Amino acid sequence: MNYIFGIDIGGTSVKIGLFKDDQLIEKYQIPSNTTDKGKYVLEDISKKVKAILNDKNIQLEDVLGFGFGVPGPVVRNFVIKCANLGWENVELDKEFKALMGQDVLVKVGNDATVAAIGEYTKMSIDKSIVFVTLGTGVGGGIITNGKWLEGATGAAGEIGHINIDKLGVMCSCGNRGCLETIASIRGWNRLVLEVINEGKLTTKLDKNNLNPRFIHTLAKEGDEVGIEVVKRVSDALAYACANIAAIVNPDAFIIGGGISNAGWILIENLEKYYEKYAFYGVKNTKFELAKLGNDAGMYGCYYMVKKHD
Amino acid sequence: MNYIFGIDIGGTSVKIGLFKDDQLIEKYQIPSNTTDKGKYVLEDISKKVKAILNDKNIQLEDVLGFGFGVPGPVVRNFVIKCANLGWENVELDKEFKALMGQDVLVKVGNDATVAAIGEYTKMSIDKSIVFVTLGTGVGGGIITNGKWLEGATGAAGEIGHINIDKLGVMCSCGNRGCLETIASIRGWNRLVLEVINEGKLTTKLDKNNLNPRFIHTLAKEGDEVGIEVVKRVSDALAYACANIAAIVNPDAFIIGGGISNAGWILIENLEKYYEKYAFYGVKNTKFELAKLGNDAGMYGCYYMVKKHD
Repeated sequence: MNYIFGIDIGGTSVKIGLFKDDQLIEKYQIPSNTTDKGKYVLEDISKKVKAILNDKNIQLEDVLGFGFGVPGPVVRNFVIKCANLGWENVELDKEFKALMGQDVLVKVGNDATVAAIGEYTKMSIDKSIVFVTLGTGVGGGIITNGKWLEGATGAAGEIGHINIDKLGVMCSCGNRGCLETIASIRGWNRLVLEVINEGKLTTKLDKNNLNPRFIHTLAKEGDEVGIEVVKRVSDALAYACANIAAIVNPDAFIIGGGISNAGWILIENLEKYYEKYAFYGVKNTKFELAKLGNDAGMYGCYYMVKKHD
Repeated sequence: MNYIFGIDIGGTSVKIGLFKDDQLIEKYQIPSNTTDKGKYVLEDISKKVKAILNDKNIQLEDVLGFGFGVPGPVVRNFVIKCANLGWENVELDKEFKALMGQDVLVKVGNDATVAAIGEYTKMSIDKSIVFVTLGTGVGGGIITNGKWLEGATGAAGEIGHINIDKLGVMCSCGNRGCLETIASIRGWNRLVLEVINEGKLTTKLDKNNLNPRFIHTLAKEGDEVGIEVVKRVSDALAYACANIAAIVNPDAFIIGGGISNAGWILIENLEKYYEKYAFYGVKNTKFELAKLGNDAGMYGCYYMVKKHD
């Protein structure tokens, strides 16, 4: 029982990690087949898993279990919805067992939550963290008392939908001024154009070269618009974090996702604005960059199985 | 081992509940002696406890333990600060054991958190709740996965210091526009004067008869200013709850504290504004009034002992 599979299902690909004795020993990737409402996704995974077991000469009896991360809300192993996959009300646990032809141990979590769990495994124990992922969307995961929050309807850690400005830009969720409208890739890019249009600052950025990585690179080199945009996003994100801290009071905020490549310039600005907004009882919360990158989800899936009740 | 003491320490009085076989069988109250930085508070409690044990002919060996609620942040039984009592860095656990002359079981929690735990004991199990207490201040407690959140520095559930309006009224904490500046007793009263000064609505309220209970009574009778103030507070509180729900996603918000006497008019308005602000994934969160009133803390203290690890 010294093997665990950590399976992170995304909208375009499935990352499969094979763990042996708590080490990630091999990574695999298969495409997410989203035709026919994603009905082949689990079947494809089960086939790949069987091929891996066969290839490595591992007996299913030697596998402690299978952890899954999925891009949508989850409550007690039940997947409520994954728009990217076409899934709705999927009993992943039951379906995967049927595909494997055996009563294997299955644990399922939301993708941002499993990434949070993954990052948590790399920290000293006993810490509570709020993981914030900045990418196409803005998501999050919360670990307290060594447990991850799932929420009543699988929506705990939906940090992207914390409201920053009631009169702000329309969000994909239908509300105005969610954090996601500012701190997602689209948000960063929109802010660049806004600041350029204000006409006060110089820049090498224009509508044809917009992406967060380039914004950060230029900001680090002193580009005026780049710096201003990093400030505005950090201001909004730190404001949200200050409110999160008054509720959850974590030891640290871990910033992950594609945009976290920004590195020190983002953390420095976050710390500055957080200091401005945070309630005195939570001033000392740390900000750190995520460490595991794209592997975080697989690690989190592994850990859910490892620490199962 | 069928007795438990639930001891809720407030700034003016200490409520002591004696529980037998999970029932609150007797309530006692002693004043909180805050002279000399509150150094006599625990001594007074230990004396009262000994008197109760003597009076009831209960052996200390028959007491499973002592739960304490204190008005300040707590981390793992260590009381960081209680401004109302004059306490700073109090090892309550150790001190109380010394006073009792025996290695008794002691559990300590923040007062709003123990009230949250108390209300939780009256709900069906498996629910997660966010308890919001509206009074002199605005506080809160969070229960998820059957566990209460303490936070890295004992500041979890500091709901009163969620920011509603960066440009709002100055809060006692030093920031502007915290929820507490609107939803505390002082906040309600200030809003009444604001709405009166706007000069558009009629009212029986004036600066000499201000208190939340009267505001609600009049609002229920159709007083224009009263209704407007209930709306404005509900708007701010529901906005905060929508943000809390995007983070914690509880089954229900439980509204307690003195102001919760407002009853249905507050819950009705909260539900209305919550519907407006909440992210779609958390729309179905319930709002309920607290059930235990002033006894909530004692019940929570009892439960911390009952469910100790």
